[in-house]
Amino acid sequence: MTDFPRRIALLGSTGSIGRQTLDVVRCFPEHFQIVALAARSNLSLLAQQVQEFKPSLVACFADTPDLERTARETLPGVLTGEQGLLAVATLADADILVAATSGLMGLRPTLAAINAGKTIALANKETLVMAGHLVMREAKRAGVSILPVDSEHSAIWQCLRGENITEINRLILTASGGPFRQADLEQLRSVTVEQALAHPTWHMGPKITIDCATLMNKGLEVIEAHWLFDIPYERINVVVHPESIIHSMVEFVDGSLKLQASLPSMHLPIQHALSYPVRLNTAGTGLVRELRWPDVARLNFEALDITRFPCFRLAVEAAKLSGTYPCVLVGADEEAVALFLDGRIGFLDIAKLIEDVLERHVSVENPDVPAILEAGDWARRTAQEIYKKSYAFESIG
Amino acid sequence: MTDFPRRIALLGSTGSIGRQTLDVVRCFPEHFQIVALAARSNLSLLAQQVQEFKPSLVACFADTPDLERTARETLPGVLTGEQGLLAVATLADADILVAATSGLMGLRPTLAAINAGKTIALANKETLVMAGHLVMREAKRAGVSILPVDSEHSAIWQCLRGENITEINRLILTASGGPFRQADLEQLRSVTVEQALAHPTWHMGPKITIDCATLMNKGLEVIEAHWLFDIPYERINVVVHPESIIHSMVEFVDGSLKLQASLPSMHLPIQHALSYPVRLNTAGTGLVRELRWPDVARLNFEALDITRFPCFRLAVEAAKLSGTYPCVLVGADEEAVALFLDGRIGFLDIAKLIEDVLERHVSVENPDVPAILEAGDWARRTAQEIYKKSYAFESIG
Repeated sequence: MTDFPRRIALLGSTGSIGRQTLDVVRCFPEHFQIVALAARSNLSLLAQQVQEFKPSLVACFADTPDLERTARETLPGVLTGEQGLLAVATLADADILVAATSGLMGLRPTLAAINAGKTIALANKETLVMAGHLVMREAKRAGVSILPVDSEHSAIWQCLRGENITEINRLILTASGGPFRQADLEQLRSVTVEQALAHPTWHMGPKITIDCATLMNKGLEVIEAHWLFDIPYERINVVVHPESIIHSMVEFVDGSLKLQASLPSMHLPIQHALSYPVRLNTAGTGLVRELRWPDVARLNFEALDITRFPCFRLAVEAAKLSGTYPCVLVGADEEAVALFLDGRIGFLDIAKLIEDVLERHVSVENPDVPAILEAGDWARRTAQEIYKKSYAFESIG
Repeated sequence: MTDFPRRIALLGSTGSIGRQTLDVVRCFPEHFQIVALAARSNLSLLAQQVQEFKPSLVACFADTPDLERTARETLPGVLTGEQGLLAVATLADADILVAATSGLMGLRPTLAAINAGKTIALANKETLVMAGHLVMREAKRAGVSILPVDSEHSAIWQCLRGENITEINRLILTASGGPFRQADLEQLRSVTVEQALAHPTWHMGPKITIDCATLMNKGLEVIEAHWLFDIPYERINVVVHPESIIHSMVEFVDGSLKLQASLPSMHLPIQHALSYPVRLNTAGTGLVRELRWPDVARLNFEALDITRFPCFRLAVEAAKLSGTYPCVLVGADEEAVALFLDGRIGFLDIAKLIEDVLERHVSVENPDVPAILEAGDWARRTAQEIYKKSYAFESIG
């Protein structure tokens, strides 16, 4: 696919990735055109986006009947419910689906878009974590590309251009280490929500920011890398690199490594997915700041300490167990992070709660979509139950 | 060219690059075969190499009639003089010429090999510096690839795999900064030969080690990059990176950078040129040590200070002036470095002497081979004359 303009359907247009996708589209009006938008609950921003980009289809996956009513009043012709998301994902007029919803919501629309032959720019990592086996199988069958939007996977993808994937020795994902890279276990125990939300290099939504602080996000990225590049877990490593300048690396069998770098920016990997294989000139757009090496001056690398970041270990373990374990990981993490953000459990309780849920799970091998979603639901319910039984009592006491 | 085994003719087999080329061949006997060897004066090593690799052709470009006689006695059937080098370069049975002589000696044989349709693995940078316009024109005409062996150019070449060269924003060559990276002008004035020969990260022959210390080598590499990748000088930058882990980088128009890395090793770029586009597994060969990022721990980057390293500036200026100026640069540098190594001029005199020679030069546009070699000879003679008039007197005084 090299023809421009490319027509884009965007799921999750009011989130962090969605807004930055629109920044890119705004900078390259001759290359990209928004044909469909879908968002969850930020109706006023969605209305502004509709006015600016004039998509032919708008959907709102509203949380509540009240919000759904408001959506219908604010946005004439808006589609609601999962049907709305599916309509956006499969719009005949679209070339690319940017899947930028968070959590489990993106799975069915992404699969529908694959079956409709759309190129997928995938920013929703839960989709691959929970259903990598289905997504990659369907993509192969439909002859559709799954293009990464995450900066780490975009880096690996760029390093692999022109290379033979059988000559990969290992993938090395970099991790900023999050705000608690240097904290000891005692300090981690008393982390506040505000501290956890203050990520040193990236500005993102609250859920993913907490996942970065626990390094769950890095674990999910390892799983995503496994599916995207078809590399066994044993050959995917993580190295802590606090500056987030090197976005990831590939080591080849000859011992040569390739690294991709830029100043921290989500615009660049989004744009790369949208324009691939073409690289569009960002000079003058303000999208990507120039990296001056003497200003960067120093890049640091250190080993990842999994004793302080058990969420990372849990993610890789769940991935290796496969079946519905990764779905349970995602569901339990959603619930645990929500409880932490509500001030109901401590920072280290996030991993404990997830581990408790994983231990109670009876996995289903090679799950289909209903089994995947059910495992996620089960994990959220079970996390709530465990919380009510153990943690709520503790905090009252 | 992907068939193995590949048959290699090696010019300069007893030098640093030549010996390391043979290390690579030794590790991959099913992939590479030595069919011709040529060396200058290390006859005992050449004899050993002949015994081990059993080439069908051996040449010795002896410095003196005595050495030539010894060569004939030691190596039955040896060819001598430039005819020997030309025979090695054009041997019908060879697929690749590894051009690893130093200085101006490699030019005619390399052009002959191009015209004979050989793939050129080019380790002799003077060839491109002096005659880039001829070499690249002839290579294009003959449909021959010029593959870089220098670690910096190999890095850029690797970063460009699968990329569109029209989407390059700039090439960024890394420079270790040499042993005098942090020396001030006063300290540079009193540098001894021993200090200049102690390179912090690479072990090479004396001429190139001094060129690294003056950063002339980096200037020559900028010129080489210009010819290899057809990028104007304005878009080739240098950044000092003392660890020599990142071997060079490419910045693309979208703001994304790709970097190639390994622990310092010449085996890797040599192997890459010989096996391209295949990457051979070096595990267990001992050729390339594993790069462990937590052990590397830190990479530093700083601006190049051209006031302390005028040779770099002279190289880029001569390149931009074009004509025979780059030939004069190379010839004057050969002579100036020889005078420094003989203890006859100071470290900072190297640049002064080269600049004096460049200033006296009347350039020829678009020079042919005789004009190129004559400009180099003129530069060496002129450097000697200036030395005798100015410097020799000073040191007697």
